[in-house]
Amino acid sequence: MDIDALNAFLVSEFPQVADDFEIESLETMRLRVRLRTRPAHLRPGGTVSGPTMFALADVAVYLAVLSLVGPKALAVTTNCAIDFMRKPAADLDLIADVEILKLGRSLAVGDVRLFGEGHEDRPVARASLTYSIP
Amino acid sequence: MDIDALNAFLVSEFPQVADDFEIESLETMRLRVRLRTRPAHLRPGGTVSGPTMFALADVAVYLAVLSLVGPKALAVTTNCAIDFMRKPAADLDLIADVEILKLGRSLAVGDVRLFGEGHEDRPVARASLTYSIP
Amino acid sequence: MDIDALNAFLVSEFPQVADDFEIESLETMRLRVRLRTRPAHLRPGGTVSGPTMFALADVAVYLAVLSLVGPKALAVTTNCAIDFMRKPAADLDLIADVEILKLGRSLAVGDVRLFGEGHEDRPVARASLTYSIP
Amino acid sequence: MDIDALNAFLVSEFPQVADDFEIESLETMRLRVRLRTRPAHLRPGGTVSGPTMFALADVAVYLAVLSLVGPKALAVTTNCAIDFMRKPAADLDLIADVEILKLGRSLAVGDVRLFGEGHEDRPVARASLTYSIP
Repeated sequence: MDIDALNAFLVSEFPQVADDFEIESLETMRLRVRLRTRPAHLRPGGTVSGPTMFALADVAVYLAVLSLVGPKALAVTTNCAIDFMRKPAADLDLIADVEILKLGRSLAVGDVRLFGEGHEDRPVARASLTYSIP
Repeated sequence: MDIDALNAFLVSEFPQVADDFEIESLETMRLRVRLRTRPAHLRPGGTVSGPTMFALADVAVYLAVLSLVGPKALAVTTNCAIDFMRKPAADLDLIADVEILKLGRSLAVGDVRLFGEGHEDRPVARASLTYSIP
Repeated sequence: MDIDALNAFLVSEFPQVADDFEIESLETMRLRVRLRTRPAHLRPGGTVSGPTMFALADVAVYLAVLSLVGPKALAVTTNCAIDFMRKPAADLDLIADVEILKLGRSLAVGDVRLFGEGHEDRPVARASLTYSIP
Repeated sequence: MDIDALNAFLVSEFPQVADDFEIESLETMRLRVRLRTRPAHLRPGGTVSGPTMFALADVAVYLAVLSLVGPKALAVTTNCAIDFMRKPAADLDLIADVEILKLGRSLAVGDVRLFGEGHEDRPVARASLTYSIP
């Protein structure tokens, strides 16, 4: 699937959140997604909430897997490990950079770094996610 | 903090999500929270979304830590490992059972199991979260 | 597999480490293993090393899975998340208590707590491990 | 600490395992360590064991942290998440590439990839480890 196909898939399968995310770039095994930060994503004090960062990491790996295996809406996350390392600034979009480290017959493993736009050297979180592919 | 104080803290600090959660019981180092499942929490197909389960695990450990250390809104999650094991039913509330395994001066570690109400023997997810206490 | 069969399997398949471990008890989905702490397991200062605790958690879940699916030497660990919470005392054996939380067709998830013998209320580590079953 | 100082520290503090590891390169926030694979590291069938891979990831992040904060033998691992993705070949040394993602006052987070020498594009494992710095 290319960027257009992935964006269309997001809109059709996840209409509730499709507006929040935008695929920025796609290469073999790598994908970059933007979260358009909105007030609903923020904690009091103005940082992006943990569940929002989890959601961004999750959708980013999901889309990277789909780009490789096609539109399998039933792929499911089986595991996530995430380190929250810095407070994200409220006034920046968050960027997720995914690298797929393994694509097996039944399991795929992705590695993601999240950072405020323009601050790639200071990641706010890092996560790895395993997807089970039906 | 007792159950009433924790519920009041949720309402004042996290007004966006306070209605979703209800503390069911509290003992030393243990706490149980209910997620009132709503359409906004569901994926197409009708299962509770991964970010919603993450949010439930996160708030449950947070409240269990606050019950022990008092109202420190600035406690932050530094790490989470979560296994998603079964699909949650859409028509059941989700229950989170937390046990605090360690409460140190600067770090607290909580272990959580999530299950559909009445199905404690078939957890839908298990997570551990580390909080940094300021 | 019962305790005798599991111990025999350990000796035949893992002769290098079989002497270190002893299965203490086995019920459906639960198993307890003892690590006979030796000088080779210790760090300077006299605490059990991290790799030794990892090895204990790993073998404990492996044996619990085999007790349910039979002697499949080719089951492999795909993921582990471990929290090290307290220093283990050098002069106590370590006990691992496993609970299998999920046994699917291709993946099994186990939850383990490690503690010094007699100190179950103060776990030194907690881990979850996923095994892929061939 | 530079490479010579780190190697000397390994020999003096961890004499049992210092011969297994060799620091290959060191830059700010990055370090590469080699595991000299020996029969004691192998499982039946000839792949490097999980505990050995854990030990390599752990020592690699430890040394990378010490290179930044100086010889603090009391830094301890508080958390590790590791994905095992491919079987390592028995006849190759394993290489660990560490990047330190966060160095705070009390916590450091490192990200490690392990691969057989010459096969950097096919990692056998990926881990993140958190160290508590005294």
